[in-house]
Amino acid sequence: MTEKIVRFLDEVRPATPCLVVDLDVVGENYDRLTEALPDSRVFYAVKANPAPEILRLLVARGSCFDTASVPEIQACLDAGATPDRISYGNTIKKAADVRRAFELGVRLYAFDSEAELDKIALNAPGSRVFCRILTSGEGADWPLSRKFGCDVAMARELLLAAAKKDVVPYGVSFHVGSQQRDVGQWDLALAQTATLFRELEEQGVVLRMVNLGGGFPTRYRKDVPTSAQYGEAIDAALRRHFGNRIPETIVEPGRGMVGNAGIIRSEVVLISRKSANDDRRWVFLDIGKFGGLAETMDEAIQYPIVTERGGDAEPVILAGPTCDSADVLYEKSDYRLPVDLRIGDKVDILATGAYTTTYSAVNFNGFAPLAAYYI
Amino acid sequence: MTEKIVRFLDEVRPATPCLVVDLDVVGENYDRLTEALPDSRVFYAVKANPAPEILRLLVARGSCFDTASVPEIQACLDAGATPDRISYGNTIKKAADVRRAFELGVRLYAFDSEAELDKIALNAPGSRVFCRILTSGEGADWPLSRKFGCDVAMARELLLAAAKKDVVPYGVSFHVGSQQRDVGQWDLALAQTATLFRELEEQGVVLRMVNLGGGFPTRYRKDVPTSAQYGEAIDAALRRHFGNRIPETIVEPGRGMVGNAGIIRSEVVLISRKSANDDRRWVFLDIGKFGGLAETMDEAIQYPIVTERGGDAEPVILAGPTCDSADVLYEKSDYRLPVDLRIGDKVDILATGAYTTTYSAVNFNGFAPLAAYYI
Repeated sequence: MTEKIVRFLDEVRPATPCLVVDLDVVGENYDRLTEALPDSRVFYAVKANPAPEILRLLVARGSCFDTASVPEIQACLDAGATPDRISYGNTIKKAADVRRAFELGVRLYAFDSEAELDKIALNAPGSRVFCRILTSGEGADWPLSRKFGCDVAMARELLLAAAKKDVVPYGVSFHVGSQQRDVGQWDLALAQTATLFRELEEQGVVLRMVNLGGGFPTRYRKDVPTSAQYGEAIDAALRRHFGNRIPETIVEPGRGMVGNAGIIRSEVVLISRKSANDDRRWVFLDIGKFGGLAETMDEAIQYPIVTERGGDAEPVILAGPTCDSADVLYEKSDYRLPVDLRIGDKVDILATGAYTTTYSAVNFNGFAPLAAYYI
Repeated sequence: MTEKIVRFLDEVRPATPCLVVDLDVVGENYDRLTEALPDSRVFYAVKANPAPEILRLLVARGSCFDTASVPEIQACLDAGATPDRISYGNTIKKAADVRRAFELGVRLYAFDSEAELDKIALNAPGSRVFCRILTSGEGADWPLSRKFGCDVAMARELLLAAAKKDVVPYGVSFHVGSQQRDVGQWDLALAQTATLFRELEEQGVVLRMVNLGGGFPTRYRKDVPTSAQYGEAIDAALRRHFGNRIPETIVEPGRGMVGNAGIIRSEVVLISRKSANDDRRWVFLDIGKFGGLAETMDEAIQYPIVTERGGDAEPVILAGPTCDSADVLYEKSDYRLPVDLRIGDKVDILATGAYTTTYSAVNFNGFAPLAAYYI
């Protein structure tokens, strides 16, 4: 909660719920990450928050962009990014979308399957491609399924195949899992990657780039390592596994770039108990799972929550305002709010700059999508 | 998949993904439900699908409407419903929204807590109120938390309190859980409700109405009882517990009214394996959890899925197109698709008329919300 946000909320008193993002914090996050990883290029994961204000700030800072779709590519171009600063990082693309990205000038593409490689060779000839490998995702708070990536043996075959098609086999990517709090996770993935680099070189295919993915966390309720600690761990792992032949590296921070820059201001709609002897109060806010807080699914991401009230706190169940019984935010994670909290009180949900606005449902229960202010 | 939908898809060939709803089916569902429950008034749960075309059809049919918010109330009024046909069924309402609903003429409100009762008495004086009681929700496919309702003892106190405020204690509501496949579940709730009616009458408060809620299912992959079977079970339970003093009853079908009226046409974006010896193919569609299929959460709702290909089928993992590893539709539920399914093939997801369009994320990964056609 920065002074700038406090002042904005005091002066403008926006209708709730709304997200307020302090752009200065985004700038600081960018600077801190580039200091921590001076030899890596930053590709901001646009999906975390595609607001034009954020994209323009990062364009001016010199950032590159990791995109998931043609509209995201277009948003980066509109914000002033040249296409050589844009990666089409989704491994699941329609052929027509690859063609459109190519027309827009994008020349860097992710893939993890033969079919996708063929699409790229056909629709974006001559482009650089990188193959995503599967990692375990241990230590990450947001679930990482096996959806993206292939195993290393298949990656080797695919990159060899790429060398025979009209694309440039350029590198390897992995993702250690979103909100990764274990800096050691990059080591394991880099060990596999370095082996893959050597095996391919023996067969005449020289890769140039390792995409270290995202995973850089935001501080929610638990402490997280600093950018500098991530930088040191990654640097050490690169030296350990690549020796004096460290490849070009890129990182794709999303949450780590914008998460702590935003807060959602909400209002208490109702406080109730289910029976006379109910041991916990239910606190219903004017925002829930379908209004932008989708990452509370299974209580995975636990946002810090603050109110203006002091005094004793007691355990509560937090829920959203929709007529959907799945719209409960926190029931098992020991959230406590002041005993004297009242209906109509403001409640601030911190560190909500990432994965909120765009996750918001378009019209569920008649509620409008999350309003947002970038200051 | 009705002939009308088949013809529309053949002739118009809309861009995918899109929902196509056959309004005739909605009309038939309405007719069948009112035949099965001739003594109940139908309050369509607008949240299931608030499309103006559906609301206008149901207005013409004589339906009433259960709403979750002021925008939903406004949508019903815009579709031609008079306010006496509208219930504000959300137990979590801002005071300002109650006031606005009252200004718009709404005189029927749900509550399950003292604070909400006070809001209604203050902002919608003289209105009829009904208290929601907690039920177990056993047998329902979509999770029912303890979010809505209070226990019966508290409901009794609240309805007695209501009699002393500027509202009319009018009835009791419950919800047996969405996609409820056990017709016996209404019996348990009605037994509790009848006891509550008698206890209140002894204290001079005569309730008039039982809101039987929703829960009426759509046929997905498993068979479900018919409307007639639900009607018979509910009728028998009413007679059993209320004898010859059966109160006015209302039902709130959402899924049961529109679910089977719609299909989502999607396209295969990618088919791949994660390793050379992977036993299942991954099939990626151009719609996923964040594009309207939120009810696949924990694989709760299992839509039937069909393709144009014949021949042998094999187990697949189905996933959506976003760069979010949580965007996997079905991994554990034994979905099988034809061995000769190809990238670019059309895939139809059946019975998707309810809880899809409005659940759709506003812009996640740059993808537009689900397009819809009402024919």
